[in-house]
Amino acid sequence: MERITAQYYIETPLAIEQAAEVLAGEQSSGTFTDVPGETEELKERFAARVESIEPLDTVQNPSLPGVSVDSKGHSYQRANVEVSWSIENFGYNLPVMISTLQGNLYELRQFTGLKLMNLEVPPSFSDYFNGPNFGIEGSRQAAQVQDRPLIGTIIKPSVGMSPGQTAELVDTLVDTGIDFIKDDELMGSTANSPFEKRLEAVMKVINRHADRTGKKVMYAFNISGEMDDMLRRYEQIVKSGGTCAMLSLNSIGLSAAKKICDQGELVIHGHRNGWGMLNRHPLLGIEFPAYQKLWRLAGVDQIHVNGIQNKFWESDDSVVKSIKSCLKPLLGGYSILPVVSSGQWGGQAPETYRRTGTTDLLYMAGGGILGHPGGPAEGVKALKQAWEGTVEGKSVEETADKYPEFAKSVQKFGGNQ
Amino acid sequence: MERITAQYYIETPLAIEQAAEVLAGEQSSGTFTDVPGETEELKERFAARVESIEPLDTVQNPSLPGVSVDSKGHSYQRANVEVSWSIENFGYNLPVMISTLQGNLYELRQFTGLKLMNLEVPPSFSDYFNGPNFGIEGSRQAAQVQDRPLIGTIIKPSVGMSPGQTAELVDTLVDTGIDFIKDDELMGSTANSPFEKRLEAVMKVINRHADRTGKKVMYAFNISGEMDDMLRRYEQIVKSGGTCAMLSLNSIGLSAAKKICDQGELVIHGHRNGWGMLNRHPLLGIEFPAYQKLWRLAGVDQIHVNGIQNKFWESDDSVVKSIKSCLKPLLGGYSILPVVSSGQWGGQAPETYRRTGTTDLLYMAGGGILGHPGGPAEGVKALKQAWEGTVEGKSVEETADKYPEFAKSVQKFGGNQ
Repeated sequence: MERITAQYYIETPLAIEQAAEVLAGEQSSGTFTDVPGETEELKERFAARVESIEPLDTVQNPSLPGVSVDSKGHSYQRANVEVSWSIENFGYNLPVMISTLQGNLYELRQFTGLKLMNLEVPPSFSDYFNGPNFGIEGSRQAAQVQDRPLIGTIIKPSVGMSPGQTAELVDTLVDTGIDFIKDDELMGSTANSPFEKRLEAVMKVINRHADRTGKKVMYAFNISGEMDDMLRRYEQIVKSGGTCAMLSLNSIGLSAAKKICDQGELVIHGHRNGWGMLNRHPLLGIEFPAYQKLWRLAGVDQIHVNGIQNKFWESDDSVVKSIKSCLKPLLGGYSILPVVSSGQWGGQAPETYRRTGTTDLLYMAGGGILGHPGGPAEGVKALKQAWEGTVEGKSVEETADKYPEFAKSVQKFGGNQ
Repeated sequence: MERITAQYYIETPLAIEQAAEVLAGEQSSGTFTDVPGETEELKERFAARVESIEPLDTVQNPSLPGVSVDSKGHSYQRANVEVSWSIENFGYNLPVMISTLQGNLYELRQFTGLKLMNLEVPPSFSDYFNGPNFGIEGSRQAAQVQDRPLIGTIIKPSVGMSPGQTAELVDTLVDTGIDFIKDDELMGSTANSPFEKRLEAVMKVINRHADRTGKKVMYAFNISGEMDDMLRRYEQIVKSGGTCAMLSLNSIGLSAAKKICDQGELVIHGHRNGWGMLNRHPLLGIEFPAYQKLWRLAGVDQIHVNGIQNKFWESDDSVVKSIKSCLKPLLGGYSILPVVSSGQWGGQAPETYRRTGTTDLLYMAGGGILGHPGGPAEGVKALKQAWEGTVEGKSVEETADKYPEFAKSVQKFGGNQ
């Protein structure tokens, strides 16, 4: 029988073997006392199994509160632990899988730290989960971009502009040769920018530009909201000739996201806002390699990974790990496009490329384009130059020497880093 | 214009006022550099506003990693901060509200701790969100229980039993006079217990018992899964005469949960598995008073709050705060029934009542009923006795003196605490 495996990074005051058994018991057939139905035969078939334990360092203070009283004075052992479950335990159901692989585990006082680091699903998952309908190749085709990252930007200010003002900005942007534009995640449908009006105004500009140039800029309309609203807005985008919808993944949740992805007509841009809550603590939550697999199984085509030298707290190492996890095939495919953003202006291109070796990116700059001293057209030009220079092996300085627009970016934004 | 307010508990190496302004800016009109469209007029209307700052203690070590490099050697100031947004920023859209009130905030390196403690929505929300269709009164009516907590149990072992075995256990349980039974959150639809088969077998028993006694035991079938599967299973429950469906709230997400709640025919039992990830760290995530409001707005009728002297890490103080937050009216109503569980066997009843003053509870015991030395019938009896004694003002010992079934519980489980 096929099994699903999960890797955890744990910290415990107990012997690791004992802690691992608690983890496995809690998330399969166990409860806090013996019950009549828990036979040996049932345990054999359905109990979670501890596959491996790798002891790591020992610390003197617990990483999380709530440790058992009787462990005071103990030290706390960290370890990597791998646990597996028979596919029989969940069937093919992502929410129940999450409730099993994560669920109550974070509540256990036998642990003072627990993070889901990765998970592996068996080949039969591909019979039940269609995965991304577009992924990297489909995103490239829709945006008509090959051999370099897609260059994108975010409508800023994120809230407050009317549909007309937004469309005006889009008009400026599409003329710059940009590939992708998105609503900010703070923008849904507001009194001064109702979704339908914004969609209509923006798509008029994009379609007109496409008719003229043959290039249809991809615009990710934020449809995050209630289920029926999302489905209605999705259809409106399709009818208006749009190619993409954006979902705030954590805010709407997995079941709704899958339902939207399953419609299959639009590229789904997955925004991970709220991610810090799930990940910022080193011994609590979930790591990106596990997280992105859930959304790929659900069918998300593009997912945010933050960026090198970002404005947030995340280290470059962590961002690189995230990008690499997206580029690794899942079940032999399930391609997903990593979306690089946060304080990006092109200066981070060489380091991004050096560490990931890929141009399969959607490279987003908000202020980095709109705040360019020469205006957004030069901002977009500068980003493309940054990537051209990068792929040619040039440093930031060398690229700036060659390209005046990028040189202006360096002058304005270079000191921020 | 009405505003939505949020209370945060923060920790920062910066001056608190400065940190609070970063928070407000990031989640409304700001970005990392000035952009042309961010006019004073737009800021006035759409910028988030810092309403109050209450400085708290100062610590020497940051609670979360990722602090700005230039703050090394600083101390870290904690504070309560209240921020408000115009309702214009989101309209009436829970996911966009979450993306605004939480969203990227946890990523900011200007904070070494950030927790959403509570939130207040304006009266107009009641025009857009129906809220729980049943809540406390509706749950009581459906289960035909007044003047004491509903007594419930969980099918254990949680996975591995066939529909026939589950129905057999249900048969035993309904004969005990229990009010409520639920699937474990690990149980969805599995090879050896397909949902439809389990529903049919269980409802046959429950309906037969209801025909005989006039009391229909409430069974929370776990429908958590993909959107269409959930809707189909919901309908199947309705058709089979069931009264309740269970959702793993964090696993399916807010948009799907609201869609299910909006169907309006079944009591929705909200399981919060995964909660520890969002809450266990004192300076990261979300506190229950804020969390439960989101689900009440979505329409969940019953929500898990853990229990006094539980088997997990959570303190009694925190559990009490959670129960009280559920019992506090939201928008003048939006009643939700707190579900007490985790290592409960009746011995915690006096302390639960002393600290919350309520019997408006669904009081769940898994092992505490099925593991009772006299069998489940005595287990249920013991729980009812525990609450009878409690409401009469008796201690655990006094109740045990009066009731032999509860005395056996004390003997078996009393040492666990």
